[in-house]
Amino acid sequence: MTIGIIGLGLIGGSMAIDLKRKGFADEIVGVESDPVNASAAEKIGLVDRIASYEECVEQSDLIILAVPVGAAVRILPDVLDRFQGMEKSDKVVIDVCSTKEHLARSVKYHPMRRSYVATHPMAGTEYSGPWAAMPGLFDGHACILCDAEESSPKAVSVVEKMYDALNMRTIHMNAASHDVHTAYVSHISHVTSFALALTVLDKEKDEKHIFDLASGGFSSTVRLAKSSPDMWIPILTQNRDNVLHVMDTYIEKMNAFREAIAESDEEKVRELIEEANRIRRIIR
Amino acid sequence: MTIGIIGLGLIGGSMAIDLKRKGFADEIVGVESDPVNASAAEKIGLVDRIASYEECVEQSDLIILAVPVGAAVRILPDVLDRFQGMEKSDKVVIDVCSTKEHLARSVKYHPMRRSYVATHPMAGTEYSGPWAAMPGLFDGHACILCDAEESSPKAVSVVEKMYDALNMRTIHMNAASHDVHTAYVSHISHVTSFALALTVLDKEKDEKHIFDLASGGFSSTVRLAKSSPDMWIPILTQNRDNVLHVMDTYIEKMNAFREAIAESDEEKVRELIEEANRIRRIIR
Repeated sequence: MTIGIIGLGLIGGSMAIDLKRKGFADEIVGVESDPVNASAAEKIGLVDRIASYEECVEQSDLIILAVPVGAAVRILPDVLDRFQGMEKSDKVVIDVCSTKEHLARSVKYHPMRRSYVATHPMAGTEYSGPWAAMPGLFDGHACILCDAEESSPKAVSVVEKMYDALNMRTIHMNAASHDVHTAYVSHISHVTSFALALTVLDKEKDEKHIFDLASGGFSSTVRLAKSSPDMWIPILTQNRDNVLHVMDTYIEKMNAFREAIAESDEEKVRELIEEANRIRRIIR
Repeated sequence: MTIGIIGLGLIGGSMAIDLKRKGFADEIVGVESDPVNASAAEKIGLVDRIASYEECVEQSDLIILAVPVGAAVRILPDVLDRFQGMEKSDKVVIDVCSTKEHLARSVKYHPMRRSYVATHPMAGTEYSGPWAAMPGLFDGHACILCDAEESSPKAVSVVEKMYDALNMRTIHMNAASHDVHTAYVSHISHVTSFALALTVLDKEKDEKHIFDLASGGFSSTVRLAKSSPDMWIPILTQNRDNVLHVMDTYIEKMNAFREAIAESDEEKVRELIEEANRIRRIIR
């Protein structure tokens, strides 16, 4: 099977590595709009060849849109338009974006809608670009397929086989529910990390050595603040309502802590910490 | 040298392991008020023997107070009182607590103040108790010595050698400055993790599978929420003013993000994320 990957960053690049390595792809055709990233991807050997967007859509059996969700909303309908004009009718296109409702809406009534499968492989790091791509990135993680009943069973089956080759377990969910879930277990974590980085970087302006004492705990809570704006601006704005709702709950919890500490109310602080400790049940 | 360790949890236990392993201690005498933890520490072999508090202070050359800071404030003056009544005058006591000003104040005018060295080895995990102790916990991390000019040079020298044996680099700082620094690079991270855990656990009440999609990023930002209330209540309340100050800045940053997202102001979101990205310079 020829697989076309549009966007050779962390996700697209890592998929390229493993789909080739596992023998799922016979050939990988890459599209990358940034010329520096394109030559890097070719140099590293992420893809068999770099092609134009048009060639890639023309020549691939399965097309993976691995671009930020802002770009995906523009490209996805165009890919389906092109499918419509082609003889080979069993081509499939997927996206791998972190928000789903906008994207789903953009092609809801497209005549080729059934050739599209909405997917979200839940894996990543705080790094981006072809240099960040790595083998095994998806290994053992969950992948969400959204609104699969709107895709053709054949398309869904191909995509499930592909994620199986990447050793991911697939979970089905509708787009709306997906966006609520990811707001809680992914998007808010990025916002809290960004805010933490801003807080301490601010202090660094008059306390040069503030980071000298930073240890593992701080690094762990702040590492997502290295994440790229190009990826996160469209996620946070497209999933705006859900993200705002989670942020409001979060700010409430911070204020509850603030009040308990301000009043030296040790009982209340204990209650909040013990409640939070229930996360032990969930996170190893 | 006989080393007495009062409190055989994560920190005390891990120090016991490495001080023995590196040959710095000839004998380690442990004190542990919780009988279950005491037998566990003996069973695991963390210490050579368990003793009473009085015996430990009597028999040890160097005493490590590895208890939560609330208990340390009560025990430290008592240890110094006991030193005063003893013939051997070169005994040393250290604490390993995460807040320093209260503790410093509690013995500021004690006639034996110079036998005490305030230290904070900046290493740990979110686990506690003797089972959490591990070799190499301190390896390569920083250790802060506070107000060392108030300790005798001989006491400071012994303590520096001990941290050298643990492969820690020592940094000198006054207690007030220490408490500001740790509020920024340690205490706030715990509060943000607690608040994040509370936020998502709340949602779990009506969305049972909310955690199914949690991946590495979420785990990383929330893991400190497993930390023990017994350790964190005294830290947050003793370092109250600094912690509140950092929380206020943090809540301001969250609100700035909230506003930018609510207004779909992509330029402002970009500005905030790019500013936060400067953390890349600091955290690998």
